[in-house]
Amino acid sequence: MANLKTILSGKHLLALSLALNASLVLRMGYDRGNKEGSCLKKTEHEVDSDTDKRVNSRSARLAVPSYSSRTNHPQDRDRVINLDYGDPSMYERYWREMGEKTTITIPGWQSMSYFSGWSDVCWFLEAEFATEVVRLHNAVGNAVTHGTHIVVGTGSSHLIMAALYALSPPHPPHQPIPVVSATPYYSSYPAMVDLQRSGLYKWGGSAESFEEEGPYIELVTSPNNPDGSERRSLINRSHGLQIHDLAYYWPQYTPISSPAHHHVTLFSLSKCTGHAGTRIGWALVRDREVAMKMSKFIEVSTIGVSKDSQLRAARILRAVSESCQGQRGESFFGFSHNVMDRRWKQLRAVVARSGMFSLPRFSPSFCNFSRRVVEPRPAFAWLKCEGDVEDCETFLREHKIKGRSGRHFGASPKYVRLSMLDSDENFTLFLDRLCSIQS
Amino acid sequence: MANLKTILSGKHLLALSLALNASLVLRMGYDRGNKEGSCLKKTEHEVDSDTDKRVNSRSARLAVPSYSSRTNHPQDRDRVINLDYGDPSMYERYWREMGEKTTITIPGWQSMSYFSGWSDVCWFLEAEFATEVVRLHNAVGNAVTHGTHIVVGTGSSHLIMAALYALSPPHPPHQPIPVVSATPYYSSYPAMVDLQRSGLYKWGGSAESFEEEGPYIELVTSPNNPDGSERRSLINRSHGLQIHDLAYYWPQYTPISSPAHHHVTLFSLSKCTGHAGTRIGWALVRDREVAMKMSKFIEVSTIGVSKDSQLRAARILRAVSESCQGQRGESFFGFSHNVMDRRWKQLRAVVARSGMFSLPRFSPSFCNFSRRVVEPRPAFAWLKCEGDVEDCETFLREHKIKGRSGRHFGASPKYVRLSMLDSDENFTLFLDRLCSIQS
Repeated sequence: MANLKTILSGKHLLALSLALNASLVLRMGYDRGNKEGSCLKKTEHEVDSDTDKRVNSRSARLAVPSYSSRTNHPQDRDRVINLDYGDPSMYERYWREMGEKTTITIPGWQSMSYFSGWSDVCWFLEAEFATEVVRLHNAVGNAVTHGTHIVVGTGSSHLIMAALYALSPPHPPHQPIPVVSATPYYSSYPAMVDLQRSGLYKWGGSAESFEEEGPYIELVTSPNNPDGSERRSLINRSHGLQIHDLAYYWPQYTPISSPAHHHVTLFSLSKCTGHAGTRIGWALVRDREVAMKMSKFIEVSTIGVSKDSQLRAARILRAVSESCQGQRGESFFGFSHNVMDRRWKQLRAVVARSGMFSLPRFSPSFCNFSRRVVEPRPAFAWLKCEGDVEDCETFLREHKIKGRSGRHFGASPKYVRLSMLDSDENFTLFLDRLCSIQS
Repeated sequence: MANLKTILSGKHLLALSLALNASLVLRMGYDRGNKEGSCLKKTEHEVDSDTDKRVNSRSARLAVPSYSSRTNHPQDRDRVINLDYGDPSMYERYWREMGEKTTITIPGWQSMSYFSGWSDVCWFLEAEFATEVVRLHNAVGNAVTHGTHIVVGTGSSHLIMAALYALSPPHPPHQPIPVVSATPYYSSYPAMVDLQRSGLYKWGGSAESFEEEGPYIELVTSPNNPDGSERRSLINRSHGLQIHDLAYYWPQYTPISSPAHHHVTLFSLSKCTGHAGTRIGWALVRDREVAMKMSKFIEVSTIGVSKDSQLRAARILRAVSESCQGQRGESFFGFSHNVMDRRWKQLRAVVARSGMFSLPRFSPSFCNFSRRVVEPRPAFAWLKCEGDVEDCETFLREHKIKGRSGRHFGASPKYVRLSMLDSDENFTLFLDRLCSIQS
């Protein structure tokens, strides 16, 4: 269960205030010669007074952005802040604080075989990893695991391709089955689907304009990448199949409304815990035959999935589950909730002052995990340039902020997707830059 | 440099003899009630007297098959010996003996990013892994690394698909380019090539019967899987492209005649060191554009390759290189050469007695690594049932030996491929079974 308590003790507030004072003093040298500093500082104060009262006391120490990590070096003024990718650097701080708890040691003679040997559906799935996947979903309440089959992949892209393979009609004379997704859709979907010009499936464009008769596959991403919206299947026709990409359906990003129970549901370690380099994703699959076909795809394409990474992922997922129960120091979701909450408030405050940009608005709802009403805090900001700016990506790039244009997501170039998961240092510099634009 | 010395001291011979005596005494209970035991015992004595004099003194302790690991339990008589897959269990003993030397420790906060960031050709390639790949090839002399680009993949299957993608003409109206390989070819090639019914490439069957005009891709596997033969490109036409799969071009399997220097050359950790579960393969690619396209394929299909496994692979490859220089205990190639040498001699002796089977013959040649003339000792035995037996796989299955039928390799069902890399226990039981057939 979550430990996202809302009341902070006086002692913690004092510590927080002292930390903020010290960090703001450190910043003064930079701010004095930096016009936009005043915008950011005002915004920070607004955010601090608005949110810090509600910071979870157990997560207070880690939740405060590391102001001291800001580089005050003049060269930072020329550095491009790259928020194009969703590299989840934000989480590194938490795992460093956890120290040795999630260190993994693998002797040279261990895990040498291709086989894991306990699952007849997915022969390369490590038992320890499967156990921890189930435990974490049960702790968070974001997916039904009972009666589902777990298929592990080298990240969730691998599993999307495996699912497309498994769900496509296998034999000619079938035409390739169209694969669609509602706009704005994840920018990699078209490239992924059409990578090998498969005769089994093909990119069919946006779900809104899809009018073909017959079978199709819909990719449903919820919360959605890039805009953070909650999504359901848009097309509800017979012969329709869905792949639910729930990579962001975790408590730091969105309220957990109910356990997902779709035919094929995908998750990834990258977005859950920040371990992108480990390249581990998993699918929860209701139909045994589909799960076996997905495993077959992974068998033929990569003869399984790294055991080292599965073992590491198991250790990390276990630490997250234990932290939910207060067994291992700071709660992982407490930490990440607070960082995201603060970042979103900071960004919204900067954007509100600007008059040049806008952000999507999300309705708060009850989160079964944290047991309170919370607002979504997506992993990406779907920023819109208001007014005359037609190409928001180019506009931001001129101000040394690199994002991904809306056109890659089947949307207008007035939109840009910006990662909210970068390091504290880069996120702060990004806010500095955004402040400088309005001034 | 290799340390495959040919003379064994009297002291070592004595130790060897004592070990053999002890193990043979242990076996007596089993052999007494087991007619075929006498065949195997005779064969063992022949092999011992023929080969043990030449066992490398530094590798003597590890090179002796672990007779004591043989299970003498009656239930072994009913167990199917599965030699269908090439799971390299044989190597586990070496790495156990090495103890902590190749243990890897990864803290929870390490290697979290998607990016490795030092190679502009392959952004997910870990520098440490690339360094060790180069070092090992230089130590062994089996591939030119200077001026080539390294692309890492989730095993070499992944890299074959990446290479097919990179070498295929990308745009319509091109027909899918045919992909061929000389018979007998690796049984997974057809499934791998046609997995997604790609519009870029398609399986074109055996190279011997390939007669189409225009561009094609030839998969050249050397030493060949399944039959261990040395291979060169069979078709030498203009517009022909080759992918060289040299997974078995290591000193334990074949003499190293010269450093390979093809356009695309593939290797894998599984077959080099036995770490199949780590799922690491690498390509040495001469053309920068091809390497970048291969990286693009891996980016879109799996967004990179497990960093944990790359780091582990680096540690293991370094240990192998250092063992070549006598820096780390037993020489890895000394150990594995001796195990393969003994196993092949044992198998040839059993087959020679049978009159029912035959094996390919290989010409010895000079190995630049070991600095002496050696005979190939492939990772698979390509066993042929002589006489009336038309379906050798079914025939062996009736005797509780599971192999892979020749028909999967585009060859006659009179052939069966059997792994030579299984554990000592299974290999010994396999020889027992084969002995029982002739008796």
